[in-house]
Amino acid sequence: MSEPRNLRVVLASRPVGRPKTSDFRFEHAPIPEPGDGQVLLETLTLSLDPYMRWRISAAKSYAPPIDIGDVIVGGTVARVKASRHAHWREGDIVLSESGWQRYALSDGSGLRRLDPALAPPSTALGVLGMPGITAYTGLLNIGQPKPGETVVVAAASGAVGSVVGQIARIKGARAVGIAGGPEKCAFVKNELGFDAVVDHQAPDFAEKLAQACPDGIDVYFENVSGQVWDAVVPLLNDFARVPVCGLIANYNDDPSASSGPDRLPATMRQILAKSITLRGFIVYEFMAAQQEEFLRQAGQWIQEGKLRWREDVVDGLEQAPEAFIGLLEGRNFGKLVVRVAH
Amino acid sequence: MSEPRNLRVVLASRPVGRPKTSDFRFEHAPIPEPGDGQVLLETLTLSLDPYMRWRISAAKSYAPPIDIGDVIVGGTVARVKASRHAHWREGDIVLSESGWQRYALSDGSGLRRLDPALAPPSTALGVLGMPGITAYTGLLNIGQPKPGETVVVAAASGAVGSVVGQIARIKGARAVGIAGGPEKCAFVKNELGFDAVVDHQAPDFAEKLAQACPDGIDVYFENVSGQVWDAVVPLLNDFARVPVCGLIANYNDDPSASSGPDRLPATMRQILAKSITLRGFIVYEFMAAQQEEFLRQAGQWIQEGKLRWREDVVDGLEQAPEAFIGLLEGRNFGKLVVRVAH
Repeated sequence: MSEPRNLRVVLASRPVGRPKTSDFRFEHAPIPEPGDGQVLLETLTLSLDPYMRWRISAAKSYAPPIDIGDVIVGGTVARVKASRHAHWREGDIVLSESGWQRYALSDGSGLRRLDPALAPPSTALGVLGMPGITAYTGLLNIGQPKPGETVVVAAASGAVGSVVGQIARIKGARAVGIAGGPEKCAFVKNELGFDAVVDHQAPDFAEKLAQACPDGIDVYFENVSGQVWDAVVPLLNDFARVPVCGLIANYNDDPSASSGPDRLPATMRQILAKSITLRGFIVYEFMAAQQEEFLRQAGQWIQEGKLRWREDVVDGLEQAPEAFIGLLEGRNFGKLVVRVAH
Repeated sequence: MSEPRNLRVVLASRPVGRPKTSDFRFEHAPIPEPGDGQVLLETLTLSLDPYMRWRISAAKSYAPPIDIGDVIVGGTVARVKASRHAHWREGDIVLSESGWQRYALSDGSGLRRLDPALAPPSTALGVLGMPGITAYTGLLNIGQPKPGETVVVAAASGAVGSVVGQIARIKGARAVGIAGGPEKCAFVKNELGFDAVVDHQAPDFAEKLAQACPDGIDVYFENVSGQVWDAVVPLLNDFARVPVCGLIANYNDDPSASSGPDRLPATMRQILAKSITLRGFIVYEFMAAQQEEFLRQAGQWIQEGKLRWREDVVDGLEQAPEAFIGLLEGRNFGKLVVRVAH
């Protein structure tokens, strides 16, 4: 090419299921000129991340989908090629969100200067970037691994999973990785130093996972869903924590099929997209610590007329089985009790 | 009956699906004599609660199932009929766990003395008992309703749901109840004072629920599951909290069918039985507050050799679509980036 031009990848059509290369379109364009207060960025490295699948689908998510014809979004490491902005100089290496294109203009907002002497700039897209901080914050804020506990993460050789397991170990927990194929498994065990690794391509995967977690699972960092989730659920310990960070096995699903026979993916999608907390509890967990407070508080509310109740009284122990069967079908009206004697 | 005898209800067979009366068997027996340090309890009121369905099934749960031939478990209000225990006197009214029988012996452990002057003793089985404290602790510890938020609870005329909604209102939240049929709905609205109530028997239930929650749902206290859950999920707001307390719509399901086409009930059952936390998150939630800490910490771990990474580098922006498609199928090995320029 005698004259450098810009190359951009735009969304040609919304993929249904697995994306096809024809869902993307390449466009050539002149290299833009920075205006006053702008810089021209030359992309050095583009990050590819699973979340992009959400942004090119029409499904409602944490961020609006991009439009047909738009440049695909994405984090980049870029070089400031020309600057008419006081804070940025030609040659600066920056982290930006300039997307799938060779050149882009920026007014400087959202740019972060990278120091190549500290770490290779591309790490700002991985271990020191979005995937790294995703692993760090999700594991520590939600997973809260304690020394000796077992932390399981899938896609363990990937950008997020690899960091999850290593931080789990740094915090004194046992890290069990799940990866696909012997090469990735060897890397997870030998290079990343996980305590154990299980190949999800093995025919007896669920059994192998159980063997790798003899004390059950205390933290499961969810980033894949699908069959891995099915194998994990029976192994979860009481009070296990599950940060739901991604569901890559379902990303190519048709979201309009979410009301189909298997409602789990639809539920998990909402948990993820809306940062929802589901938390099971059995009252015994809180009873000892809070019984006195409850009785004092509820007694006061009853005296003040703020707390009312209704009893559904069945007469005679002989009626208990039938009344219990009705309770499971919602036939009672109020708290169901059996008057056994006066 | 010339001579009073004991009547007990024992488990005759483990119910499959909906319990049948033949799963229960009545047995007559002599009234037992208290030994030294024991009291004889006469059951006045027996509590019937949904959790009992778990205890008579073979499924693993938070407590072991009772055996065939055992008296069915249950909370009771009882009168001390005879005492050979220093702390208890004939005539004391107590809360006990003596189960589905007219008379039982106790060594005093787990008994709580009730004062009939403060509240009707049977309230110790309902609003002031296990259902009440379940509502109180689940809503306040997990649901954490804030003033102005919308709290939804099903079985709103029932023992737990009625307390959930009233406490939500006391805490300044908007309480929306779900109940079955016009009578229960009127009670929830008029007697319990919920802000709105929706009849789950209405053909347009999901639409009605959406209308009753114009600002979405911030707390959903889950005690029924099934179709109610399906209607609730799309209405949940970002950062909604879902205390999972019961799944009565699924209690008669065959747990061995839990690996069937709909995996949601199986997952919810585990969340409940094991007090598991599922928490979705998007990294932006934590990014602003924790980015500096992360970069400092991760940078240090890299320097110490504790945190490693691997990049999967694809050359040329032209390769981005194909590489992205492969990422969704796990074909990358390490953090996937595209080298766009040098």
